[in-house]
Formats: sequence, structure tokens, C-alpha cells
Amino acid sequence: MITLHLIGIGTGNPDHLTRAAVRALNAADLILLPCKGPDKADLADLRRAILAEVITAPVPVAEFDMPRRAAGAEYRLAVDDWHEAIAKVWTDTIARHLPQGGDVALMVWGDPSLYDSSLRIAGRLGAGGGALSVKVLPGITSLQALTAAHAIPLNTLASPVTITTGRLLRAGGWPEGAVSVAVMLDAGMAYEVLDPCGLHIWWGAYLGLAQESLFQGPLAATAPHITAERARLRALHGWIMDIYLLRREMPDD
Amino acid sequence: MITLHLIGIGTGNPDHLTRAAVRALNAADLILLPCKGPDKADLADLRRAILAEVITAPVPVAEFDMPRRAAGAEYRLAVDDWHEAIAKVWTDTIARHLPQGGDVALMVWGDPSLYDSSLRIAGRLGAGGGALSVKVLPGITSLQALTAAHAIPLNTLASPVTITTGRLLRAGGWPEGAVSVAVMLDAGMAYEVLDPCGLHIWWGAYLGLAQESLFQGPLAATAPHITAERARLRALHGWIMDIYLLRREMPDD
Repeated sequence: MITLHLIGIGTGNPDHLTRAAVRALNAADLILLPCKGPDKADLADLRRAILAEVITAPVPVAEFDMPRRAAGAEYRLAVDDWHEAIAKVWTDTIARHLPQGGDVALMVWGDPSLYDSSLRIAGRLGAGGGALSVKVLPGITSLQALTAAHAIPLNTLASPVTITTGRLLRAGGWPEGAVSVAVMLDAGMAYEVLDPCGLHIWWGAYLGLAQESLFQGPLAATAPHITAERARLRALHGWIMDIYLLRREMPDD
Repeated sequence: MITLHLIGIGTGNPDHLTRAAVRALNAADLILLPCKGPDKADLADLRRAILAEVITAPVPVAEFDMPRRAAGAEYRLAVDDWHEAIAKVWTDTIARHLPQGGDVALMVWGDPSLYDSSLRIAGRLGAGGGALSVKVLPGITSLQALTAAHAIPLNTLASPVTITTGRLLRAGGWPEGAVSVAVMLDAGMAYEVLDPCGLHIWWGAYLGLAQESLFQGPLAATAPHITAERARLRALHGWIMDIYLLRREMPDD
């Protein structure tokens, strides 16, 4: 019997971990640690630094290579195949290190509920026939790290919030009826497709880390600075994780 | 000079606190603790229990009575007056306990960015002329506690999420183009205004606490059980904090 603990760890700062997350990591029989993958989400060094900071018990860590996502294929099919490949690597790694079963911990950037695949991948493990239960420990999302860094609310008073992706914003433009729009997973400045008139942007990268970078201002004036800075930082650090919030400026808020 | 630390504490379980939140509480010169208010958000006993669990330094705690919000008045005006009254109580309490300035900590349910007024109220303090800076420490929101308890993602694959309030859902119905809708601050079963066909609900109350209660299922079949259970639990415990996620069922997800 395996219990897989999907543990939200925030955006890279060990201080984002909750007391529950620290306890679950220390109580695990095995910690799975993805590495050598092509994706920015596989930042193994950052995960190792977090473990070095919070682990006080002798917990075995199993590193595994992340499969690559097929390029060019239709998006949903490519994701489907990729998730299947990751599920297989998880299954094999757990079977090798923990043949008798036990508690397995997987560190998830942000929170496992928000634009993360771990829950969907874990759903495939159960299908393999082995006894598996999944426990989720919430973590600080990049969205919360962003609003905290800027000291702003996510929503304006009595208004809704839309959370979306760069891909969706680029394809569909400003969401119908939206006031505040948080954009995640934007690899390519999707805000450029919007009419910037009346829009304000709050942007952040490497939130909570030493290299944290923040910009905010009217979208028209600020977007070029963000675009340039994002390219510069990505080249400088070799990776970037960023997020932004857009808001229609309201006269009374 | 005052630094006001708005510290997200999650939904009442001390294990929701982050390492940063625990450190900031212990490093504060004063902790402000609202009590005796009429609002469910003033659950002073729960706040005191969290402090008893995580505080290891001798930090003074100043309890203060929360002002009441005027009933009946136009919503925005009533909120405006109420925020002004709270800002005055904060200012007076800080001045009385910390005339030389220092670090003040305020524990905020969930995360200070999400449907919480602390940031707006803090904005009024600066207007008083005293030197004030605000720091925000993110916390686990009830939304994250809900999805963690049900072990579900907030978003379906490559889809947006709308976060809204019971008031807005009741007034406007299902948000245009939405797939997943998280409803906060619903004091009165706003889901009853929706055509339940094709909708699924995940509901939770007292998330992360011993009295946690969860329901999920097709909205049509599940709503009556939630409505009845919510009334029963509220009468039993004298208060309730709950939240739900609604999702259009998609054939391919």
C-alpha cells in the first residue's frame, strides 16, 4: 500500500513551506525528486536546497529523470502521452525503492491544485492496479507570492477574479466580464494581444527568491520593460518562473 | 515607524501556517487580535489556539473589539464606513501599546489577498500621516484547503478558473464562459439560482479542522444535502466557514 503525498512547496523559498508540509516531508519513507528534465519545473537544485533546509530526519531521496514532452503534436494528446510516461517513471521508482509500500512525498511547485499535473498523473497510478491513496498538502501559489510581494489584493472589492493561462489569453483575449485576470504559464508575453487602454499590470519573477524581480504600472507603459527584463533575466539565470495580474482600472477602487 | 505584517494563517489549523508566518509572529513587537465582534471572521478563540501552538517568544497580544458593520445601508458605503472604523481601532490600539513604533502582526484568515479587507484597511492607516509600511505574508486560502481535502485540481486541463462571491453568483448567475467557478463568502446557498444540469459541486466547511465536513457530487442531487448539513452544522457549532467549487462536467476531462 502506497500513500502518495503531493506537497505544495511554494515558489522556491523554504519559508513558503507550511508546518504540515515540513512534517510530511520528514515523515516520508521516500521523497521523489524529478531532475535532469528539460522543463523549468524540474529545478532540482532548488528542490534540493529546500530539503536541505527543512529535513531533519534521515529520509531517502530518489531522483528520477523527467520524460520529455513531445514537441509539435496536438496539445492535449502530447500532454496525455507525457503524463502517462511520468506515471510510469513514478511507479517504477517507487517500486524499486519501496517494494513494501509506505509514504511517498513529492514536492510540487506552488499548490498541487493550480495548473499542476501531479494530481492527474497520480490518477493514472491507481489505474495500474496497485493500492494507492493520494493526500494533498496545500502550498503557497505563485499568485499569492505575487500579490504578497506587491502588497495588493487579488480581487477588487466585491468583484470576481479570473485565473487563466498565457495560451488562453493569447487565443481568446480579455475574458468576458472580467475585472482582475491572473495569468499563469505564459511563456511568451500574451499580454501583447490585449488593447492595453485602462489596464494595469503587476508582474513578478523568481517570487520569494533572492533574484525576485517586480514591475507594476499601466500596461501600455510597463509591458515593454517587462518584456525586456524577462528576456534579460532568463538569459542571466538560465530559467525563469513568472506570473502577472492584470486589472481594469476602476474609477472608484 | 510602524511595520504592519498582514499574516495569512490558513483556515484555522496551525499546520497551515508557513515557516515565514511562524517566524513573523514570533518576531513581532505586538500581535493585534480582534475579538468580541459580531462577525464569523472574528473567531478569537481559534486565533488564540493558533498562537498557543506556534508562539515560542514572549510577544504581547493586544485584543480589541471589532466595530460592527451598519446593517441595511448601501453595501459599498456601509463597507467604507466599517473599514474606516476598523482602521481607527487599529491605529488607537497600536498607539497605546507601541508608542515608539515597531513590528505589528495581524493574523488574517486564509490569505490577505483573497476576499479580505485587511489590505484596504491598512491603506487608510497610511493616510493618517504616521509612518507605516505594510508587509504581506501569504497563507493557505480556504480554496486551497478545499481542493486539497477533495484531492482535486482547481482547474481542468488548460482551462480557466473564476473566483467569485455568493452575492455575485446570485446576482449574475453562471459567469460567462466559465468552466470552474469557486464561490467564496456565500452566506445563503447562492448555487440554488443555477440550472444544476451538468454541474458538479465540491463543498467543504471547517476545512482543516476537527469538525471538517465535505460533500461532492452532481449539483442537483447534492445541493439539498449541503443546504441541510450547513444549517445543522451552523446551529451545532454556532458559526460556519465554508466554500465550494462548481464545475461544468466535460466529457473529456
